[in-house]
Order: sequence, then C-alpha cells, then structure tokens
Amino acid sequence: MSDDLRFPAPALTDFTRALFQTGGLPADKAGVVAEVLVEADLLGHVTHGLNLAGPYLKELDGGKMTAEGEHEVVRDKAAVAVWDGRYLPGLWLTRQAVEDATNKANTFGTGTVVIRRSHHIGCLASYLEAPARDGLVVEITCTDPSVVAVPAHGGLNPIFTPDPIAVGIPTEGDPIMIDLSASTTSMGTAALYRGRGEMLPGQWLQDSDGNPSNDPNVLVGDAPGTILPAGGMDHGYKGFSQALILETFTQGLSGLGRIDKVENWGAAVQVRVTDPECFCGADSFRHQAEYISELCRTSTPRDPANPVRLPGQSALNRKRQHLDDGVPLSEGILEQLREWSGKHDVPLPNPIS
Amino acid sequence: MSDDLRFPAPALTDFTRALFQTGGLPADKAGVVAEVLVEADLLGHVTHGLNLAGPYLKELDGGKMTAEGEHEVVRDKAAVAVWDGRYLPGLWLTRQAVEDATNKANTFGTGTVVIRRSHHIGCLASYLEAPARDGLVVEITCTDPSVVAVPAHGGLNPIFTPDPIAVGIPTEGDPIMIDLSASTTSMGTAALYRGRGEMLPGQWLQDSDGNPSNDPNVLVGDAPGTILPAGGMDHGYKGFSQALILETFTQGLSGLGRIDKVENWGAAVQVRVTDPECFCGADSFRHQAEYISELCRTSTPRDPANPVRLPGQSALNRKRQHLDDGVPLSEGILEQLREWSGKHDVPLPNPIS
Repeated sequence: MSDDLRFPAPALTDFTRALFQTGGLPADKAGVVAEVLVEADLLGHVTHGLNLAGPYLKELDGGKMTAEGEHEVVRDKAAVAVWDGRYLPGLWLTRQAVEDATNKANTFGTGTVVIRRSHHIGCLASYLEAPARDGLVVEITCTDPSVVAVPAHGGLNPIFTPDPIAVGIPTEGDPIMIDLSASTTSMGTAALYRGRGEMLPGQWLQDSDGNPSNDPNVLVGDAPGTILPAGGMDHGYKGFSQALILETFTQGLSGLGRIDKVENWGAAVQVRVTDPECFCGADSFRHQAEYISELCRTSTPRDPANPVRLPGQSALNRKRQHLDDGVPLSEGILEQLREWSGKHDVPLPNPIS
Repeated sequence: MSDDLRFPAPALTDFTRALFQTGGLPADKAGVVAEVLVEADLLGHVTHGLNLAGPYLKELDGGKMTAEGEHEVVRDKAAVAVWDGRYLPGLWLTRQAVEDATNKANTFGTGTVVIRRSHHIGCLASYLEAPARDGLVVEITCTDPSVVAVPAHGGLNPIFTPDPIAVGIPTEGDPIMIDLSASTTSMGTAALYRGRGEMLPGQWLQDSDGNPSNDPNVLVGDAPGTILPAGGMDHGYKGFSQALILETFTQGLSGLGRIDKVENWGAAVQVRVTDPECFCGADSFRHQAEYISELCRTSTPRDPANPVRLPGQSALNRKRQHLDDGVPLSEGILEQLREWSGKHDVPLPNPIS
C-alpha cells in the first residue's frame, strides 16, 4: 500500500467529474458521482471508490446507465416516497434520496425514500458523514435483484446479494458510521483474496455440497459454492434473517424485485432518515450516543494492542490523513483510470511527489 | 417436553388475566398482559411466556410495575411520538405503541413510537402476527439500560443487553416473523444450559480474560465473562454494530439511557410500522415477499433431513398445534403459577387429560 501513488482529493474529484461529463453525464450528476466515489477512497473503501469509475463509464458508454433527466416519482405521500430511478447514476439518486428523506424527516419526524431501477449506488458509507454531523440518523440499504451470491441458512442455492446496510449515528464527536452486509463477507473481498491466492480469514463460504470453506476458489468453476450468511454455519440464521429484512423492504416497498427477473446491473434502495429533533432533541440524542460510544472506547481490550474501535472511527481517521497527504490509488485502479483518461482525453492529475 | 401438562389456551388466558387483576392491574391491562404472555407460549418462546408471570406479579406487588393510569405523551409530532411509560406493564404499552404507530403509518406511510421507562416488554415476536396478516411491516426493538451482558467487539467489559429486534413481514401466506438478538445467545438460554449442566452448542461466550468458551458457568462467579456479540470471535463487529444501532435508537430517541444510571427492570422501546399501502400497495409487497420466501423454502437443503425454514415458520406451526392440543407448561413454570394461584386465590385451569 505504501508504494501506491497519492493524489490530492480535490484534483481527483475534478478529474473524475470531467471524465463523467465527457462520458455524457450532465455537470450536476457528474459532480455528485465524482464526490461520492472519491469519498469512498478517502474513507478507505477502495473496492467501492474510483475502482468503480471504469465500470460505471462503461455502463454509461453502453447506454445501460441513463445520463439525462430525472427519476420518476411513482408515489409521494407525507413521510414516504417511491421513485423509479430509470437507471440514472445511483450515486446521484441516493444523494438526492437522502436530501428528500431529510426534508420529510424535518417535517414528519422520519422520512423514507425507496428507489427501484437505480443504477449501482457504490459505497453506502459515503453518504453518512455530513447528515450525521448535522444530527440526523441515516439508514441506507440496497439489494441488487439481478445478482445472487448468498443462500438461506441451511440451503445451498444462492438467493440473496450480500445485502449491505449502512447507518450513520450522530454523537458529540465523530459520528458512528456502520457499513456491513448480511453475509460473512462480500463478493469483492472474496475476489481480492482469490486474486492474491490467499485463503479467507474465516470459514465464510461453503462449497456446492455445503462443506464450510475458507478457500475463495470454491465460488468459481463449474459447481460454484456460496458466501454464508453472517453468523456462518454456527448461527447463520441471523444473517439470513437480516437478508430477508433488507430484500423484502427494498424490493417489496419499491415494487420491483427478484420476481420481475431484472437483468440490469442496479439496485433496489431504501433510505430512511430519522430526525432526533422531533423526538427528544438532537442534543439529547448525541448525549446518549456519546456515552455509549465512550463505554466502548474505554473498554478493557481483549488484546492490549487492539483497543476497541467504533464503526467508522478508522475510516474517518483515514479520511483526515488522506485529505492531508493525498489519496492512495493502487496500480490496478490507476491502470483503469489511465485507459479512460486516454479515451476521453482528460488528463490524470499529477501525483504528490 | 412430552411429559409437560397441557392447558387450553383460552383457559390459560382467563387464569392469567384473573391473576393480574387480583394483583392490582385494571381489567384492560390485565387482559392484554395475559394475551401477550400466552401468545409467547403458543409460539414456543417458553422463557418469555407464562414463565414471566411470576416475576411480573412480584414487581406489581412491590410497586415497581405501575398499575394505574396511562403513559405520558412527551412528544407527538406527525409520524413520530415519544412516550414516558411510567413503568406501566410493557406488554400493554407495546401493544398500544403498535396501534398508535399503525395509525401514524396509515396516514404518513410510516409511524414510530419510542417509549422510555417501559416495564419489561416480554417476547417481541408476540406482537407481530396480527399486524403482519393485516399487511403491515412491524419492527420492534428494545434495550434495558439497567442491564449489561454483552461487550463491544474486542472488549471485555459488558456494555449492552443482548438487544433484541423483531420484524414481522407480510407474505401471501404465513408472515415471516423474525426475532433475534444482536448477541450470539441470550441470558435466558445460557441460564437454561447452566441449569442442565450442559455446554452451549457454540463458542458464544468469553471468560473474563477474553478466552472463547461454550461453558455457561463462565458467566457466573467472582470474575464473570460475557456473551459475545453475534458473529462471535470471528466477525463479532457485526453484532456489535447492531447493538450500537439498537441502543442509540431506543435510548437516544426516547431520551433516557445508560447515562441516566437507570436501576428499574424495564426497557427503552422503539416500535416502527411501515404501511406498504402507502408505497406500491400491500398486494405488491406481499407478492415480492412471497416470491423471496418461496425461493428459500424450495432451496436444496445442506442436510436433506432439515429443509430451509423461514423465521417464524416453526413458531406458527407450533401455535396452530398448541391451539388444537393445548399449551404445554413445564413443571418449573407450573410451580410458579401454583404459588401465585394460591396467593391470589385464583384456581389454575384443569390440564387436558
């Protein structure tokens, strides 16, 4: 990692915006897509940052990501809304959904926006920091009804996506930023280990016969295995239950799901915003959350070298560091970016020397 | 289990209502408490059914469960409300919160009611079936800020309760009824195994030094250990994150939590109801959820003797059976009930012969 070239975040954002504008996105959409992608790299979620720029540009090129126009409002009633995203950029749609759900939450206490036919929404943690610092609780969940990777607990057939949920929780300091999946691991992480020829750190997979495995190669080949629900062989009914919640909420409320045999790369999305100001006040919420956070941070660690960390704590520290020292990009990601830089004649910024 | 005496559910409900009325609860509250307790036994959640009648009657007797009056409405704004439960019976408060949140959901799309200073709310699955059959999605979560049992991931000090969440999801048949905790197991289950002198089925605990253990005796004694967050040693940051969500939502929104050094047995509760009719329609929701359920039910099982079961499926089958054949009660529970039957001069119903 230390050999990675580093780039100033603002220059990367400008570069990415220009790439997407040249690729056909209007300026406002290109700007948001660039910001959300660079935010993921700032937080250290490298699989879901600029690593996705190439695949998104390809979808845009092939007409599978819609460039023009707005989402269609299918229903908008008081605290809730249903949007048809028309496969517009998911990063831009989700940012808008957070804004709309926030307005609803300010008025009604909570706001929920669900989106069907969104394009891929990237790194869920990227949307959390600003609203959480403003005192809002944001929950983002999504599923891709065109993808299967995770079985029911006790089953062999893949049924679900890894089904992520991200939650931003205000405290008196850095917000808690949770970003996890209903499965033991993600497809990206398994692919990363497979690429490196390494075993996973735990028995997070099963082969096609249902034998537990830490070998990422069981996911490929003629009779591929599956990624186990969170809890693994031991108590995977917990991850299975979480997957059922996320899949039925996103697809059931947005009105488009697995039964519709969707084939596009995309997402059914649910954004929920809760405004603590409409309950006992944002300060009171922050106060309670800060106390619980403090109990965790000051826990006696099992391993003295590894103090307890709150979700999001490392990511926010990393972001501060990357804003100061530049955003590191791996050679694999740079290779993709150079290709699109050439294709669209948008020069890559200079690395920090 | 097959040696347990069995009782007709209606007779048990009448008996329990009479016990609580004699104990001091007004008829309406006693009726709801009886119904919710018997519902838990019908579903097979035996630790949280009539097993709790004795402890509740004791709290009522000692003035720690409030008998008279209503909850105080701290705040009521559009889709959300905050109640002070004044330690009224949690089963009665929660049933009311589900009704109020349902009314809000019908009007605004979603409804959220949080309660501080509720008394214990029993078995969370007991509240789900009727609203789910009516097409509503109900989420119930609670934490007891006076109890600690579960540490942060990587920590040794107990910080959280096992922190349950229950979700009822409508389908075209039986609803999905999820009821799980953010920890690997519950205090009740660990106590059950300890009582039997058995080891737990998994490494769900750690001793006070942080060594993983399946021995329920590590939770007692001079230097007690803790129950691990869901995911265990391997990926317990998932259960830890879930606990942070449940604790900050319930305590942060209701305005009373661990920082207030609460000592009463009770709960901070969050009830959220979503009305799919305000999104794409209840039928559309059921249709999507049914399809996902069917994919799970018809999965190839890892073990042919154990087909995949949806959460709540066994419980609802058990309920149908118990309504036909009677509700089995263990000798331990009957012993408690006989004691209160004598104390309050309310005769225990006759078992089914």
